[in-house]
Amino acid sequence: MERAQIDSFLQFAVQAAEDAGPIALQYFRRRTGVSNKAGGGFFDPVTAADREIESRLRAEIGRIYPDHGIIGEEHGVTASAGGLSWVIDPIDGTRAFISGMPAWGIMIGLVEEGRPLLGVVHQPFTGETFSGDGATAWLRSSRDGSRAQMRARPTRRIGDAVLYCTHPSMFREAAELAAFERVTAACRMMRYGGDCYAYCLLALGEVDLVVESGLQPYDILPLMPILEGAGAVVTDWEGKPPLTGGRVAVAATPKLHAELLAVLTGA
Amino acid sequence: MERAQIDSFLQFAVQAAEDAGPIALQYFRRRTGVSNKAGGGFFDPVTAADREIESRLRAEIGRIYPDHGIIGEEHGVTASAGGLSWVIDPIDGTRAFISGMPAWGIMIGLVEEGRPLLGVVHQPFTGETFSGDGATAWLRSSRDGSRAQMRARPTRRIGDAVLYCTHPSMFREAAELAAFERVTAACRMMRYGGDCYAYCLLALGEVDLVVESGLQPYDILPLMPILEGAGAVVTDWEGKPPLTGGRVAVAATPKLHAELLAVLTGA
Repeated sequence: MERAQIDSFLQFAVQAAEDAGPIALQYFRRRTGVSNKAGGGFFDPVTAADREIESRLRAEIGRIYPDHGIIGEEHGVTASAGGLSWVIDPIDGTRAFISGMPAWGIMIGLVEEGRPLLGVVHQPFTGETFSGDGATAWLRSSRDGSRAQMRARPTRRIGDAVLYCTHPSMFREAAELAAFERVTAACRMMRYGGDCYAYCLLALGEVDLVVESGLQPYDILPLMPILEGAGAVVTDWEGKPPLTGGRVAVAATPKLHAELLAVLTGA
Repeated sequence: MERAQIDSFLQFAVQAAEDAGPIALQYFRRRTGVSNKAGGGFFDPVTAADREIESRLRAEIGRIYPDHGIIGEEHGVTASAGGLSWVIDPIDGTRAFISGMPAWGIMIGLVEEGRPLLGVVHQPFTGETFSGDGATAWLRSSRDGSRAQMRARPTRRIGDAVLYCTHPSMFREAAELAAFERVTAACRMMRYGGDCYAYCLLALGEVDLVVESGLQPYDILPLMPILEGAGAVVTDWEGKPPLTGGRVAVAATPKLHAELLAVLTGA
């Protein structure tokens, strides 16, 4: 795909995510109702913001790119006519969102035949927009009007690394949890929390590793071009592209990523 | 103490915390050096921001209230001539701070003979200042210029409650961890992360419970007047005021707090 075409798609994605920000802020910290999507059992909060934002993004995509497909968290899949599909996670980090913590984001990405081309995360409360196209990554801040290229930091050894993971309940299997705990023991510091925001902090050079499991495709696809654009390495726990979600292993450098996979697999 | 006197102290504390905000932002996300206070062993990050902010706050207090004592995280205790002491945690949440996550705060409180009178948490990245005097609590936001009274939400049953805790490594003893896990199992949702910011979210009515252990006095004393000013209940795990730190149990309502203590003690 031509450079100008990618830039045009990226510009659309940034604008669409930022335009949806005020919808999210209408519901953030406003004590809205929270329904239970799973209908009992595991708690899976869905906010009105989630549905309203996805509807708005779908309408915008349909208006500008009627031939493109759409894969959304709330409203399912619309088929693509030409191999290009938008991936939407209207509020990634709904549990942070419903508890007032600003570590969530509006995510939108574009994939071609399942391969991510570009992605955007917008955090309207902090006024940050993280974006990337696999080659470069950017942070725009409405707080101070800055726009800066993002680079993951040059950490090479797992003993120096700061690790993030949203929540230990992601690791449903004992072997998964044991693998994660090996990483925790090997690295310098581990913090829980973050959702998409933790991946953005890795692209920003503040965090070195993110290790998670149980992700949906829309949880990771929009993040991949941001992370890879900042020089980070994103795979599943076996070293393959995590195109269908599942287990994800992200590291700031190739050297650190190799060490991460070795620890995860117990090699 | 007279109302006007408390208001005057609170105004000073808000101003001092907000004036220190730019110092913190000079170091936040700027890849500063991080030294290891403990000198090996358990990782305890101290940033230059920490020390610079405390020095500044101490100088301000010394200038305006030369007879007051000071209890600070970095530079120790200055004795009080008249029973009043300021409690300073220059950056509460240093691990969040050094990984770029905006869930940290500049904390300052005033205690009289060890009993907290008022407290302030300032988060300069999000532009929020949480304050309280035990009777009322306020959030001022420079994002939108708003100032609003805070009230904890009316959650009465632990099964409906959202629980925060900074990190599971706080629970060093097996019995402590087991007690925390009983609370986790009883409540609706548990999230890790937050430091002082989680307590502020409780005062704001977004979170129902915070359960932690291993706190220092300066970690909790400035938060107590904010939480109690919002109607929340703050004790140690035995139901006493947590004036020396240690194990802390905070709940949005007295009814919920009673249930929390029962679950913590296994009653």
